[in-house]
Amino acid sequence: MSLQQDVDLLRNIPLFSKIEPSKLKLLAFTAERLTFNVGDVLCHQGDEGDSAYIIIAGEADVLVDTDSGQVTVATLKTNDFVGETAILCDVPRTATVKAKSDVETLMISKDLFFQLVCQFPSMSIEIMRELARRVERTTAQLREAVSQRPVEPRN
Amino acid sequence: MSLQQDVDLLRNIPLFSKIEPSKLKLLAFTAERLTFNVGDVLCHQGDEGDSAYIIIAGEADVLVDTDSGQVTVATLKTNDFVGETAILCDVPRTATVKAKSDVETLMISKDLFFQLVCQFPSMSIEIMRELARRVERTTAQLREAVSQRPVEPRN
Repeated sequence: MSLQQDVDLLRNIPLFSKIEPSKLKLLAFTAERLTFNVGDVLCHQGDEGDSAYIIIAGEADVLVDTDSGQVTVATLKTNDFVGETAILCDVPRTATVKAKSDVETLMISKDLFFQLVCQFPSMSIEIMRELARRVERTTAQLREAVSQRPVEPRN
Repeated sequence: MSLQQDVDLLRNIPLFSKIEPSKLKLLAFTAERLTFNVGDVLCHQGDEGDSAYIIIAGEADVLVDTDSGQVTVATLKTNDFVGETAILCDVPRTATVKAKSDVETLMISKDLFFQLVCQFPSMSIEIMRELARRVERTTAQLREAVSQRPVEPRN
């Protein structure tokens, strides 16, 4: 794929939509494209991780190990990003991400991530927005799970 | 309090610790100090909101309405921030925040928030870090709540 085609592709990702096309060339040069086949694992819960992924095509499940087995907590689609927690918080991967179909991704290393965030505030705002949405979504699920707990029988 | 004292106070808040002291003057000029007495409500779940708060002193409970009543999901302490979801996601307040003791806050309006984020990438990174931690914490609580669900009896 030509550099121009790469830039066009990046421009269509909402995370980068407010970045000037000329500056997107840096990103097109630096970010790595990685393709996964259905069933492949992008990252394993508990592993060290120093990169995030943006889904360019396909779908991937986010799986979390619980006492009752592995639970799918979300399904990622085109333009979603994942893996930023290990970069931001210096913790092991907090979930397993598994390709639900063939998946094409843009891999953003830790260094590139911090470079981008420092250069492009619009990208930071989009990431904050998405993280705030995730806090909300998880809190809503938690609220529901707590409401469903059985009331202790009175003797 | 003098401007210099205000700047010294801001410099000790981790969110602003990497911002040059000279630039903190802008913030000291623009951000509003608000004091709440124990039991006062900083914001109500469901209300429109266009400001975030940084706790300078005291503690505040984050309360969420559930089917089983109001649940305390977190307690905020000095240097914690709250209220950014309504600003970032343009949604009503997602929780009620109530002063657990007398509480002193720095109120950051929506406009100032976006100004700061655009000018100070270090602040964006701190906010992203805290949001990522919150996703993690809530996901862990959810995992636990799901694990505690009773297994359906087999007939």
